Amino acid sequence: MEVTKKNFKEVLKTLPKILQSASFIAIDGEFTGLHHNVKPSSYDTPEERYDKLRQGSMDFLLVQFGMCVFKYERENSRYLVHPFNFYVFPRPMTNSRKPDHRFLCQSSSIDFLASFGFDFNKVFRDGIPYLTSIEKDALKEHIKEKHAFFQQESSASQPSPGFLSPAAKKPVEIPPEQKEFVEGVCKQVDEFVKNDKEQTLNLDPCTGFQRKLTFQTVKARHESGLMLTTKAGEKGERYIEVTKATEEDKKLMMQKRLQAELDEVDDAAGFSQVIDLISSTGKPVIAHNMMLDVMHVLQQFSCPLPEDLSEFKELVGCVFPKLIDTKVMAGTQPFKERIPMTGLTELEKTLKCDPFTKPTFVTAPGYPTYCSSNDQSHEAGYDAFITGSCFATMANYLGTFLDPPRGRVSPTCNLIEPFHNKMCLFRVQDLPYLNLSGPDLIPPRDHVFHLTFPAEWRSHDIQHLFSTFGQVFVNWIDQSSAFVCLTNREEASEVMKTIERAPEYTLKTYKEYRRALNNATPEQPMDVAQPSTLGDHAISKTTATKSPFRVPRSLKRPHDASEVRGEDAEVAELTAVGGKKRKPMDPNAPVFVSRRSVSPVDSTSPDNQQPPHTDVPDKDPQDNLQTDAPKDEADSSTTSEIKGSAKEGDESKKLFEEPDTW
Amino acid sequence: MEVTKKNFKEVLKTLPKILQSASFIAIDGEFTGLHHNVKPSSYDTPEERYDKLRQGSMDFLLVQFGMCVFKYERENSRYLVHPFNFYVFPRPMTNSRKPDHRFLCQSSSIDFLASFGFDFNKVFRDGIPYLTSIEKDALKEHIKEKHAFFQQESSASQPSPGFLSPAAKKPVEIPPEQKEFVEGVCKQVDEFVKNDKEQTLNLDPCTGFQRKLTFQTVKARHESGLMLTTKAGEKGERYIEVTKATEEDKKLMMQKRLQAELDEVDDAAGFSQVIDLISSTGKPVIAHNMMLDVMHVLQQFSCPLPEDLSEFKELVGCVFPKLIDTKVMAGTQPFKERIPMTGLTELEKTLKCDPFTKPTFVTAPGYPTYCSSNDQSHEAGYDAFITGSCFATMANYLGTFLDPPRGRVSPTCNLIEPFHNKMCLFRVQDLPYLNLSGPDLIPPRDHVFHLTFPAEWRSHDIQHLFSTFGQVFVNWIDQSSAFVCLTNREEASEVMKTIERAPEYTLKTYKEYRRALNNATPEQPMDVAQPSTLGDHAISKTTATKSPFRVPRSLKRPHDASEVRGEDAEVAELTAVGGKKRKPMDPNAPVFVSRRSVSPVDSTSPDNQQPPHTDVPDKDPQDNLQTDAPKDEADSSTTSEIKGSAKEGDESKKLFEEPDTW
Repeated sequence: MEVTKKNFKEVLKTLPKILQSASFIAIDGEFTGLHHNVKPSSYDTPEERYDKLRQGSMDFLLVQFGMCVFKYERENSRYLVHPFNFYVFPRPMTNSRKPDHRFLCQSSSIDFLASFGFDFNKVFRDGIPYLTSIEKDALKEHIKEKHAFFQQESSASQPSPGFLSPAAKKPVEIPPEQKEFVEGVCKQVDEFVKNDKEQTLNLDPCTGFQRKLTFQTVKARHESGLMLTTKAGEKGERYIEVTKATEEDKKLMMQKRLQAELDEVDDAAGFSQVIDLISSTGKPVIAHNMMLDVMHVLQQFSCPLPEDLSEFKELVGCVFPKLIDTKVMAGTQPFKERIPMTGLTELEKTLKCDPFTKPTFVTAPGYPTYCSSNDQSHEAGYDAFITGSCFATMANYLGTFLDPPRGRVSPTCNLIEPFHNKMCLFRVQDLPYLNLSGPDLIPPRDHVFHLTFPAEWRSHDIQHLFSTFGQVFVNWIDQSSAFVCLTNREEASEVMKTIERAPEYTLKTYKEYRRALNNATPEQPMDVAQPSTLGDHAISKTTATKSPFRVPRSLKRPHDASEVRGEDAEVAELTAVGGKKRKPMDPNAPVFVSRRSVSPVDSTSPDNQQPPHTDVPDKDPQDNLQTDAPKDEADSSTTSEIKGSAKEGDESKKLFEEPDTW
Repeated sequence: MEVTKKNFKEVLKTLPKILQSASFIAIDGEFTGLHHNVKPSSYDTPEERYDKLRQGSMDFLLVQFGMCVFKYERENSRYLVHPFNFYVFPRPMTNSRKPDHRFLCQSSSIDFLASFGFDFNKVFRDGIPYLTSIEKDALKEHIKEKHAFFQQESSASQPSPGFLSPAAKKPVEIPPEQKEFVEGVCKQVDEFVKNDKEQTLNLDPCTGFQRKLTFQTVKARHESGLMLTTKAGEKGERYIEVTKATEEDKKLMMQKRLQAELDEVDDAAGFSQVIDLISSTGKPVIAHNMMLDVMHVLQQFSCPLPEDLSEFKELVGCVFPKLIDTKVMAGTQPFKERIPMTGLTELEKTLKCDPFTKPTFVTAPGYPTYCSSNDQSHEAGYDAFITGSCFATMANYLGTFLDPPRGRVSPTCNLIEPFHNKMCLFRVQDLPYLNLSGPDLIPPRDHVFHLTFPAEWRSHDIQHLFSTFGQVFVNWIDQSSAFVCLTNREEASEVMKTIERAPEYTLKTYKEYRRALNNATPEQPMDVAQPSTLGDHAISKTTATKSPFRVPRSLKRPHDASEVRGEDAEVAELTAVGGKKRKPMDPNAPVFVSRRSVSPVDSTSPDNQQPPHTDVPDKDPQDNLQTDAPKDEADSSTTSEIKGSAKEGDESKKLFEEPDTW
């Protein structure tokens, strides 16, 4: 269902019931752009990636929010779906003309949306406004202060609060060219006062200065009995409404107006209420490659993003206590070896075929039916529907591993728990996800080197420099620097000894590079992979909180797990099968071993020996990483089955990386 | 006429003839926003204003360019008008996906455009692309380099130019999950090769990595006879085209492709060609309050704006050698006292009435007819038409001062010369214009003070502080600083002696404030009004050029004055009446003295004694400034008749400045 400011209020009324009965909620966002200045890299640390997105992507705007609510109907063995496609725009309020946001657009993203028939007029003309709770409070404060000031103005006995008392205001002199205007207004008002029939007179729209003159003159001529109000017409043109009113009436009307202005602010909170509703249900929220979506949703509709990654995790936990990223799922065993490409379109195609079985989805009456033949890709509502359907299909597939197999697996079932609160770190080579419920993995990067070189260098020049070490993966940072990753990890220790130093280029180990970076920006220390006794995967230390970030109280909701889980009887059963509750990625969980033998990928298999290639990341050479970390310190035991999923065709923007002709 | 990418090429063909025969060309732009971070102030210096707009406004986008070409038909005593409304958007090119601009939007500006029915879809889906000549050259260079690289790749004997020679590329190993895909492609290509009828085969769209595998595999299986090309479909999806071709064919096709890619760049120059055409005619270009329009046009379609104001003036002179700002005209005698408000809408209304006479305008066949009853304000094409018609009306009004009076005055007539190349400095209180053809005036600001104060202060607190000196004009800089301008100039010297110092606020003379500012930013010295022997209006010294800005050669055109002026016979006549040619604002010109006595406004008239009021600028207290400057040093002699024109209702954004209720 298309939702704009025109039907938003009606739709909003229906949402609590629909959301409360949901099995899960799939979401998707469309933005006016992706990256500005800072570009994500394949060797970002989680902190670095978060920081890059926060500083380089949040100035773009989420303009379309897709939400598809999936409700499992046990009696019909099918999902009832309610798809929504919200158009959102930070429209300034009529009276205060606030907030007046500046936001960025990226030509290629706009062009991309336009090519898929995106309706920009719906956004800019009819988009639903929104305010974060902080903005809402500030605006209300502002309005109250303004009203208090006016009341004080009329009763001069009260002292000016907190600052010098106002000087007596002299009336503005009427300039000659305005005399005709003012006389016309006086005549009109005088006639209106004599006329007993009319209670209200709307003067013609005029300039701010003319309104000032009107207020001043009319007030002087008619000491009481009239009330003047500036109003805004349809096109924003401002005019004065003159109303007959006693002093008592005036007070009442002032009171009413205050209330009306406060109500306007509540109305202007608009779309943020939808996010509040989703959050309050505590239902599992599903999205595909969700990091940007989640960050935009929080920033625009909840509260400004904190500087610190750990604070961000806390914030996400408050707003969306149960997130599942279908890209992380698709890139993890047992899906990984059955799903060659994890882009949403490709994923959907793959999940239509054996061994997967698509559940039945029925669209609720009165809602638009999406069918996959009618391609509506990149319309947020459609993408949310596809994401949810992919999730349900993958979830059910996990049930086939049980003995006896289960046809349907709910998102709160412990089979799904390993995927809870893990966000895809797009294109990061060796970190499968950002862990929202705990510290992140630190992959070893001893075989990664940082190289700076002349801007004329191309990939093959770098390959040439490293030719002694076989093939390398080149990850460009900018025109004259790149990360270079060896395929033959065991030769890593030879690189610094073998490659000669030359004035044209500088070569650093990843560790040296990180250390230099940390020294350069001491305020934002990056976690460095230490020569660790914990084995290959060390756990990053949570850095001490520096900024005074606090999650706004309004966002802190008690999310009762049992309430959330109550939806299906089968949850309890499956949880029993799965062993310990709420311990994600328990190595003893039977998910991946029962019924079919899905053993971890053999690191000596051809799949893993295949050399990496330049700029089109495919297989991660780090499959099947081992760790000696104590099990309770990390989700290490199943990380061997979770690998980088940056498999989509990476449309390289680097000159010559991906030639159009050969 | 609405012009989008769909009809642009056809319209472009018709433009040279239409523009060549023009009497003048009126233009107008619509932008995605106005100001970011830095806000213009009423006491900006010209350098400061230029700098603020360059840094604070140029990140927004001009998305609609209105152009109305006015041709005077002597035989019919009327103007034939060709109105155009161009939608422009920096669409990335299909092949290179360049340029990929980031641009800003301001919610209130977008909302404003939306409220006037602006069609954003036309901009983003169908906008005409554009490139500056610098971008065009860079893209062509890039394409040539790419092609040279591929040719070198195929003939390995040639050394890599300028950098290390490429290492021998090993083929990428085909991962197991891609084997099926590659086999499918091989089968398809093999069949295509056998089939004599088909010359071209389009493979299915696939990812970048799959294309890499396809190139590699097909090349290995079919050493010659086939040519593979990556192409982009309608929705940007990429696929490979396989064509049968001999080596000779291939070379030819490569050559053709290079040419096609270069041609694509020429095509992508798109809208910039319109600006080139306007520029090449050298015709007078008319706009209303034009500074932002001109800056955006130059920045988007010609070349990046220089840092220095004097370099900007040079650039404008190259692209638009003859500019006329109708807002400057309307705010100058003999119009000033007959035109109370100089906003375009108000101006148009005033010019419909006595003593003005609107000329006859006839729209060219096939072009949309704008009539003022059908309000299309803020559509750029309509605004351009209104601007042009206002100009023609005002120009003709000047003819009524001649003896005998003249019904029509052409824009190149010497009566108009005083208005040439003077741009309105919007809301600057005491500087009537930016002088594009020479140094700027420096108004005395001895009666202006800079005040910082606690953020809680309101206008009346400042007025209270200055209460000894009568009414003051408060010009807010931000929440806690403002310029304060005395109405009673003669008391200026008492201010610093009289107002006590207090820890809450700081008070500086304008001169002290400027000096502090200059010391803070030594790289960008602001011109300070010196205690001058030149009288009240000193001439700013042109600062030495610091940045290595050069106007691109392509923009330097010989604008032959005689060619431009050749249009009307009357020009010569009137020029003869006016005395010296091309000496703007010659005090001896008969324009303002003949037929009716239009003497300079008396500074003691009530019009000038009227006190200024807070934040709604109306009359400039500095009417009738005198100068002792030698006449050949400045356009000083008629400046007494040119005054600030910031008269529109200034919709104050400052809290409490303009209360909605009283």
